[in-house]
Amino acid sequence: MITVFSADHEKRNVRTELYGGVLVPPHERAERARIVLDRVQEVGLGDVVAPTRHGLDPVLKVHDAGLIEFLSTVEDEWAAAGYEGEAIPTCWPARRMVDRVPRHVDGKLGYYAMSTETSIGPGTWEAAQASKDVALTAAALVAGGEKGAFGLCRPPGHHAAYDLYGGYCFINNAAVAAQHLRDAGAGRVAILDVDFHHGNGTQDIFYRRGDVFFASLHGDPADAFPHFMGYADEVGEGAGEGFTVNYPMPPGTAYDQWSDALADALRRIRAFGAEAIVVSLGVDTFERDPISFFKLTSDDFRRYGGLIGQAGLPTLFLLEGGYAVAEVGINAVNVLSGFEDA
Amino acid sequence: MITVFSADHEKRNVRTELYGGVLVPPHERAERARIVLDRVQEVGLGDVVAPTRHGLDPVLKVHDAGLIEFLSTVEDEWAAAGYEGEAIPTCWPARRMVDRVPRHVDGKLGYYAMSTETSIGPGTWEAAQASKDVALTAAALVAGGEKGAFGLCRPPGHHAAYDLYGGYCFINNAAVAAQHLRDAGAGRVAILDVDFHHGNGTQDIFYRRGDVFFASLHGDPADAFPHFMGYADEVGEGAGEGFTVNYPMPPGTAYDQWSDALADALRRIRAFGAEAIVVSLGVDTFERDPISFFKLTSDDFRRYGGLIGQAGLPTLFLLEGGYAVAEVGINAVNVLSGFEDA
Repeated sequence: MITVFSADHEKRNVRTELYGGVLVPPHERAERARIVLDRVQEVGLGDVVAPTRHGLDPVLKVHDAGLIEFLSTVEDEWAAAGYEGEAIPTCWPARRMVDRVPRHVDGKLGYYAMSTETSIGPGTWEAAQASKDVALTAAALVAGGEKGAFGLCRPPGHHAAYDLYGGYCFINNAAVAAQHLRDAGAGRVAILDVDFHHGNGTQDIFYRRGDVFFASLHGDPADAFPHFMGYADEVGEGAGEGFTVNYPMPPGTAYDQWSDALADALRRIRAFGAEAIVVSLGVDTFERDPISFFKLTSDDFRRYGGLIGQAGLPTLFLLEGGYAVAEVGINAVNVLSGFEDA
Repeated sequence: MITVFSADHEKRNVRTELYGGVLVPPHERAERARIVLDRVQEVGLGDVVAPTRHGLDPVLKVHDAGLIEFLSTVEDEWAAAGYEGEAIPTCWPARRMVDRVPRHVDGKLGYYAMSTETSIGPGTWEAAQASKDVALTAAALVAGGEKGAFGLCRPPGHHAAYDLYGGYCFINNAAVAAQHLRDAGAGRVAILDVDFHHGNGTQDIFYRRGDVFFASLHGDPADAFPHFMGYADEVGEGAGEGFTVNYPMPPGTAYDQWSDALADALRRIRAFGAEAIVVSLGVDTFERDPISFFKLTSDDFRRYGGLIGQAGLPTLFLLEGGYAVAEVGINAVNVLSGFEDA
């Protein structure tokens, strides 16, 4: 399996994450991608290639132009404001407030943010663009006939909604890639989100569409980030009704329950008639992940990679979360190896 | 003029405020109230009395029971979660997310918060209750025939909405007091908010009511906190249509423009037929306030106190913001002295 990777991910290298009321070094850090790349090379998964540049047109097919303009200017606006730290929102349009984009960078941050753990600093926008180029380049491999491809994306993407960033995400790589597969000729595409956290951004983007199926297995949002999306009764709306499925699961969930949900999701994806699958591959379902509460072992990752492989569909894997840094490479590559061996 | 004051405000003594991407000592700190009290005594404004306890019934007339339950339990829930810092929200119900209260304290924080600068730590809820008792006790003095009274409230209240805390505020003291005046027999009550920041919480609580007029003079929300409320086209809705008026003003606004807005607000309050005025007395309009951008001088505070006094209505002053700590006492008491001398 070919891996697409860009060293430009390192340009996102912020110092802070708001966590538990203090500023800590980010859980989502550059080391993660290097460890996954090392493991890809260690096991000889296949060639590693650099992405080709795709510009912003594919991004604007799934994101609001205002969000993209904001992401491209916020680093300079924040620097001009002269604050001491990295950019973190302080207020947002809460219930009954107005839907208006303020002038001040503090207001813009709150307007476009869904959360506060995601500090923005220099290089973030450049890294986010490289990450979506990784996703698009890997998507093109699958559209061109590869059985599978791996986009080693960083920063991740699945929390980025139509007009919101957050959860370490800026551009929704999976959504951009799924749209690319559609535009390249696939009539129906499924996105399977196996990250520990609900893929609220991806759900949001496709919630009213019937051509992209979205299935997410995740920690119950009553207990886990992002808290305000991912409940079982969210099933799509309008033309998208029935094309979103959520599997929220409680603290302590281990592989038996988790893999039952995966099997159900794969059944629905086949019934949908998907011609390709985009996997939002977060490995924070791992038993020792520092910010999650599922109990998958490293072997379980290989097993479920096999289940995905047995679906027999062209499959694009895109890296999302996973923060137990030492094991993030083993677990991600186990999924890919399990897929290849299926 | 009688001042109502409770030393219990000191029980709110958090260490952190998220400001400019770093955690700094809070701008809203205990020292503020002590400085104002010292100035009240220095100029011999009048007696200083302790509040009587009023319980939560008057609070539940203007706030959601869920918010009050949350505020009364969040300190313990946060402590039980074992986080290192004070309680600060990390995510919230952003656009198109679900309106559901999560189980985890992180989710509850985001559900009930409007902003992140307001850390919650031990003693916050006790101080917030003492602050509303100060407001209610001062309101009772006005209802009982005093021409004016001063509730030296801390924490402040005007950003606290029906079901939201933030902006250093937990219970909306002005709203609780205005409701008390209504219940004590005033047919129509006006709230005049002269704090630098828009009184979004107060507006929210009375937006659909025709018996409480709300006027706010403040920094344009396009440029200033709270960013998502306080625009000139917000005028009330339903039975409240025409009973909210906002005067957003740009950076650098000095007394001439500001006092024109005040004169207009007082004209409207008279036309409304108010039988009493509650003044949300923030003094962060001061030219050297560290987080605001108006240019009022200490003399200006005395002048506008006189304008309010000339309205000739029973008037309840409740302390809101004001962060240039050295001058916060002089400026607040200048308003009260100007009122008395009118």
